[in-house]
Amino acid sequence: MPELRRDPITGEWVIMAGERAKRPDDFRSHAVERGGEAPGDCPFCPGNERMTPPEILAFRHPGSQRNGPGWWVRVVPNKYPALAVEGELNKTGFGMYDWMNGVGAHEVIIETPEHDKHPAFLDPRQIEDVLWAYRARYLDLKKDPRLKAITIFRNHGRVAGASLSHPHSQLIATPMVPGDVVRQLEGARRYMQYRDRCVYCDILRQELDERARLVTENEHFVALEPYASRYPFETWVIPKRHLASFAAIPAEEQASFAQILGETLGRICLCLDDPPYNYNIYTAPCDEDETEEFHWHLDITPRLTIAAGFEMGTGIHINVTPPEVAAEALRNVDVTAAARLPEEVRARAERRGQ
Amino acid sequence: MPELRRDPITGEWVIMAGERAKRPDDFRSHAVERGGEAPGDCPFCPGNERMTPPEILAFRHPGSQRNGPGWWVRVVPNKYPALAVEGELNKTGFGMYDWMNGVGAHEVIIETPEHDKHPAFLDPRQIEDVLWAYRARYLDLKKDPRLKAITIFRNHGRVAGASLSHPHSQLIATPMVPGDVVRQLEGARRYMQYRDRCVYCDILRQELDERARLVTENEHFVALEPYASRYPFETWVIPKRHLASFAAIPAEEQASFAQILGETLGRICLCLDDPPYNYNIYTAPCDEDETEEFHWHLDITPRLTIAAGFEMGTGIHINVTPPEVAAEALRNVDVTAAARLPEEVRARAERRGQ
Repeated sequence: MPELRRDPITGEWVIMAGERAKRPDDFRSHAVERGGEAPGDCPFCPGNERMTPPEILAFRHPGSQRNGPGWWVRVVPNKYPALAVEGELNKTGFGMYDWMNGVGAHEVIIETPEHDKHPAFLDPRQIEDVLWAYRARYLDLKKDPRLKAITIFRNHGRVAGASLSHPHSQLIATPMVPGDVVRQLEGARRYMQYRDRCVYCDILRQELDERARLVTENEHFVALEPYASRYPFETWVIPKRHLASFAAIPAEEQASFAQILGETLGRICLCLDDPPYNYNIYTAPCDEDETEEFHWHLDITPRLTIAAGFEMGTGIHINVTPPEVAAEALRNVDVTAAARLPEEVRARAERRGQ
Repeated sequence: MPELRRDPITGEWVIMAGERAKRPDDFRSHAVERGGEAPGDCPFCPGNERMTPPEILAFRHPGSQRNGPGWWVRVVPNKYPALAVEGELNKTGFGMYDWMNGVGAHEVIIETPEHDKHPAFLDPRQIEDVLWAYRARYLDLKKDPRLKAITIFRNHGRVAGASLSHPHSQLIATPMVPGDVVRQLEGARRYMQYRDRCVYCDILRQELDERARLVTENEHFVALEPYASRYPFETWVIPKRHLASFAAIPAEEQASFAQILGETLGRICLCLDDPPYNYNIYTAPCDEDETEEFHWHLDITPRLTIAAGFEMGTGIHINVTPPEVAAEALRNVDVTAAARLPEEVRARAERRGQ
């Protein structure tokens, strides 16, 4: 059973993984976790459904069987969960230290049956269904009073932590609100108390006016490089509609979200030769997801540089590419050429061994 | 000129590097920066002193010339500084955004003239002189009213961000106090206000009593795996004496610090086959370095795992090695055998291409 331990100085929680525990010998090769097994060995491929725990949700063709082929989006529990879904939440102290057992949920959203499909070039309709799956899982897990926050993210490429190459994203529900979410929420609150406006709405206004850091926009969303980008080509996708929770997005705007997400990932992929990246949906904590004081958004962080001792020790990032330079490069990507490029990008990535 | 930009939500500052600016093409190979040039090309080797900016400080043999050979510890400005030492500090706003020019200092402490010397196996007397150099630079830079905090750190191995293999550490002085330092200071203050005791002193008491997470101790210092370790084998070196600033360490305790630092790095190196790591000295901000409310310490973070989307997006770390397991493994390292091991470790590392 995993456990949660709290740093007595900063108050930050750490997950001590149980099932995944490693001993010194496991690190001696300094091996980076592998990606890219063949479709036959891939637990996320159709026909291999029995290699995963039983499915929680699937969008399936009529007549297909649960835990068999015939799905186009499939959600399963993570086989090596960081947090365990069973059991009551227990909290205790050991002397000065605070402890909880590692209750939560850890799920995998398999985004397509096609093992070799590049996730940046999924059909927009397919991306939209992935987003509907995110939302369905959020709404279901939110009912569990043990869970305080739900984090949905994707790791793309080994350097970004992906251990399997079949397109998938993940969901982790935690019994506490993560520190980074607390800090964003507090920041948005502070701004609103002082100015009586939303900081994200103000960012949108200034960025749509200045345009130097804009990547693209559509009817309901904007993609931009943030003014204080922490990483080269860090990109935010922000809804124009002020809503605290991504699960509250009106049904008619989901296609717009899918479109801009696919286009933005495509631009990043084409501009930077399929870089490793993470994305993460920042949404309000479960108990506060109707607050006026937050504005949900998605943050894409390409993994192009290494965090060294200064970043590790201070939290101050050194960014070697100003967001104005990154935005211009991303705007200049010829997305009309994208349709014929995925295969080439994939082939180049495979030659590099990604 | 680098600049500092502030995230309008979290208030965190980001350094936008000027000299180091990179465009999309620089990232296309996804190349990790190289380490390990030959001694002849190494700017930190004796005889190559002209390859660095002029030295700021050196411990030299009598009769040797500035910016020539004959030193055993040498401090120079970083040739590609993240912050620039010249100029007045200017602060302004652009619409809703906060900006400063990138004033600060970025120095390199060359820890030995020997290119191939493994930094974990320097002579304790040599380590002590490196620590004296840290202190001298701290005390000098502290006089500059533009500088609010001084971060001293080491990157070891390419994966930890080291671009040159010759043993060296770095110092960055910033015109603001880094977020992670603020959070530690606030945490220590909160604890002291509630309990009227120092949280680090309490940690030492509990750990010396429990002993499960102890690595080693000597007369004046303790090395331990923190209860809520964020990384496998994260190790803290904490002075038994309650002092806010590492620069206030009594002269007679510096040898004790050098001894435990060398021994701890040696244990990590031997236990994990010379892993990449960072270390960082957490010391109080310059203006508050006599406060009763902080307790300086050094944090070593081996880089054995990859931060994936969840860690990137939440700040919650998933640690796959409980600190009790790590501490036991580090205690069990045979340090008496260390004297004959450095060459073997180095040779193995070279075979791996580190």
